[in-house]
Amino acid sequence: MKAVILAAGKGERLSQGKDKSKPKPLIPLLGLSLIERAILSAKESGIYDFVIVVGYRSEEVVKYVEEKQKRSGLNIDFVENAEWEKGNGLSVLKARDALQEQEDFVLLMCDHVFDSSILKELLAKVMLNKGGKSVLCVDKPENVFDLDDATKILLERNKPKAIGKGIENYDAVDCGMFYCTPAMFNMLEEEMGKGKYELSDAVQCLIECDKLEVFDISGRFWCDIDTPDSLEYAKNKMLKSLEKPTDGIISKCINRKISKRITAKIVNTNLTPTQITIMSFIIALASAAFFLLGEHKYLIIGGLLAQASSIIDGCDGEVARLKFLTTDYGAFVDSILDRYADGTMILGLIIGYWMLYGGISVWIIIIGLFALIGSFMISYTNSRFENIFENSVKGGGRGIPIRRDMRLFIIMIGAILNQVLVMLLLLAILTNLEVVRRVFSIRRIFKLPTVPPT
Amino acid sequence: MKAVILAAGKGERLSQGKDKSKPKPLIPLLGLSLIERAILSAKESGIYDFVIVVGYRSEEVVKYVEEKQKRSGLNIDFVENAEWEKGNGLSVLKARDALQEQEDFVLLMCDHVFDSSILKELLAKVMLNKGGKSVLCVDKPENVFDLDDATKILLERNKPKAIGKGIENYDAVDCGMFYCTPAMFNMLEEEMGKGKYELSDAVQCLIECDKLEVFDISGRFWCDIDTPDSLEYAKNKMLKSLEKPTDGIISKCINRKISKRITAKIVNTNLTPTQITIMSFIIALASAAFFLLGEHKYLIIGGLLAQASSIIDGCDGEVARLKFLTTDYGAFVDSILDRYADGTMILGLIIGYWMLYGGISVWIIIIGLFALIGSFMISYTNSRFENIFENSVKGGGRGIPIRRDMRLFIIMIGAILNQVLVMLLLLAILTNLEVVRRVFSIRRIFKLPTVPPT
Repeated sequence: MKAVILAAGKGERLSQGKDKSKPKPLIPLLGLSLIERAILSAKESGIYDFVIVVGYRSEEVVKYVEEKQKRSGLNIDFVENAEWEKGNGLSVLKARDALQEQEDFVLLMCDHVFDSSILKELLAKVMLNKGGKSVLCVDKPENVFDLDDATKILLERNKPKAIGKGIENYDAVDCGMFYCTPAMFNMLEEEMGKGKYELSDAVQCLIECDKLEVFDISGRFWCDIDTPDSLEYAKNKMLKSLEKPTDGIISKCINRKISKRITAKIVNTNLTPTQITIMSFIIALASAAFFLLGEHKYLIIGGLLAQASSIIDGCDGEVARLKFLTTDYGAFVDSILDRYADGTMILGLIIGYWMLYGGISVWIIIIGLFALIGSFMISYTNSRFENIFENSVKGGGRGIPIRRDMRLFIIMIGAILNQVLVMLLLLAILTNLEVVRRVFSIRRIFKLPTVPPT
Repeated sequence: MKAVILAAGKGERLSQGKDKSKPKPLIPLLGLSLIERAILSAKESGIYDFVIVVGYRSEEVVKYVEEKQKRSGLNIDFVENAEWEKGNGLSVLKARDALQEQEDFVLLMCDHVFDSSILKELLAKVMLNKGGKSVLCVDKPENVFDLDDATKILLERNKPKAIGKGIENYDAVDCGMFYCTPAMFNMLEEEMGKGKYELSDAVQCLIECDKLEVFDISGRFWCDIDTPDSLEYAKNKMLKSLEKPTDGIISKCINRKISKRITAKIVNTNLTPTQITIMSFIIALASAAFFLLGEHKYLIIGGLLAQASSIIDGCDGEVARLKFLTTDYGAFVDSILDRYADGTMILGLIIGYWMLYGGISVWIIIIGLFALIGSFMISYTNSRFENIFENSVKGGGRGIPIRRDMRLFIIMIGAILNQVLVMLLLLAILTNLEVVRRVFSIRRIFKLPTVPPT
């Protein structure tokens, strides 16, 4: 499957913002230009072949994309539309020669950002139900940021009846994502014969000959980036989407709020997620080193560093998701370093305490070791039954919330209050109690009767 | 799918052994009677409906099975064949009324034990290739324990040509496991009209009208239990099968050899796998308690207990597999208790050492904690990528062999030699080195190019 991406327009209103020197496809949004975002969103859905239609300042756009996607393994063809000012329908038609005859394709706009799951589902829908029609993604009008500027659609029993920016009655809005059959080109040619150069003119024809279906994507994130305001809107929505339903309490209330802001900054640098993971690990080691010194003032610094490490630990995943750099390997390394960080911090706390109060040190060792074992066991039980525990813990309803966000928070508070023993005791009790709870709660799931399915 | 199990015969030769008082189906083999073993092997393949044909001392057999399978969720019908002495073909025919008309079924002999994967594959083969023929499992003659007594089969281009105990030319041996179509009953009736009451007479007819296929199971374990010798042979084979290809070096060379012998004893008691898991855990805790005392003589006891715990830790799985009691939950609890046992033992070693030589105790804490972290990380990385590491570590070729069998062995040796610091240092280095190796070795697997499949 090929994707045709329209990147020919000027985007005048957008270039009135701070990035005025750039052609629209190269305008950055959270670390990636709009054209890169369109390409990588499509790649997430398994599309590796692209036809990009360029127009306004085409040389710059081509050079930029070629440079950025050099080692990506993607096949990218460029098609020039010198008459881009006539209308975006002409840009689509220009892509025809770069496609095989009678080949279906996906049509995207470089200035529309979208959650890549939308495209995955669109393709899945088409695969399941090959109706030979083109499919247009639509959303409910109330979900659209700039309704005045949107292309509206009138529906009747879920079938499209009319399309246009100016139509008065409408039920849905065009999201700028299409699954197209080659019929699209015929309609474009026909309309151009009549002097109509806009894509929506051809879509109106498809509607009239019953060759278009709509696919409702309401509830998913997408945004047409036309103005500096819509760019800001999209940015906020995308940052908001970094919150995970499985985030723990501390993560939700504190860490994520800060890490999102940090991420919004560092996403514009060349820092990779792995580098951020390592930074978080180094901060944790520094925290352990301060704990080792034992004195209260160093404990406070160590505690704050522990919490800082916990916050930065969220940024690696956030940057990875925003820049399409998520890998299983990255998540694996992150989890390994987290465990070593936890262990080293507790080691630092034990030795720091021991250095200060040599007298009762057997207890600090025992309690500290059980805090360490418990912390590991929370991660270990999670790893063995990831989905079961994540689901039962998320929503906060069940289980003791003693995942990493909470553990490091307890360490910070304990260090600030100079209550190392109490802090370790709390960790030792809560973590191991939660492990026991998990062992018993999971029992019910396994102890289903061994009767055959009837 | 129903299974018909023949359990009508007397088994005279077998009852000359020590269990002479029992009817053949109730003769025990590694903790389960032959009839239970046949039922539970079939259940592993997803069969929940049984027709058991009883004859000799039928009341005892029925009572026993009903008692044992009371809460099993299985549907078990009994059919009596009072004329069981005539031949086993008659027993099969007696089962007809307990089956639906035109229903295919699996036919098993209660005195044949088999690896339950054979039946799974037989059923899978039939599902894939519905030829409307009956299928008989066969093995190569050289794999058979008591060839003289076996029913032989002559093959020609993999098709059966003749069957019988006395035939002179043969290429295969009947394993006593059938997938039968109702044609079997017609053949049995026909043959009985001629006064032939043996199952193999009817099978000969199926062969003659080209209604039988064979399924080669050579390489798998099965055994016809006819004599005390064959019972002993089956027992040894089954104990041997408890060795896992993923066993570590110490496990393979020491632990498994001992645990198999212990298992052979305790499998005849009512000890459940969970109880054995807990016993192993308690022994580990006792080991930790002796370590805590610090003195060399106690260290030796603790070290031997650690190794004993390691050995007993193999028995729970062995008993579970022999008695068809394996559960994911059991494996989960086992892995949790193993981690706590490891942690507690290292805690005991640290404190014991500290009690004895207060002077250099910062190092013992640091080294001990890294030994603990490393031990956990071996299990943690295994849990996150079970198959990858198990496969790369098994065979001994790759990686540092520092799984639990080796760790507890090192602890024993270190304790006996009174070298706690060296032992913990060795554990700390080897485990953490192996974790680092895993992190880098797994990288190659993930760093595959992101090009589309072409």
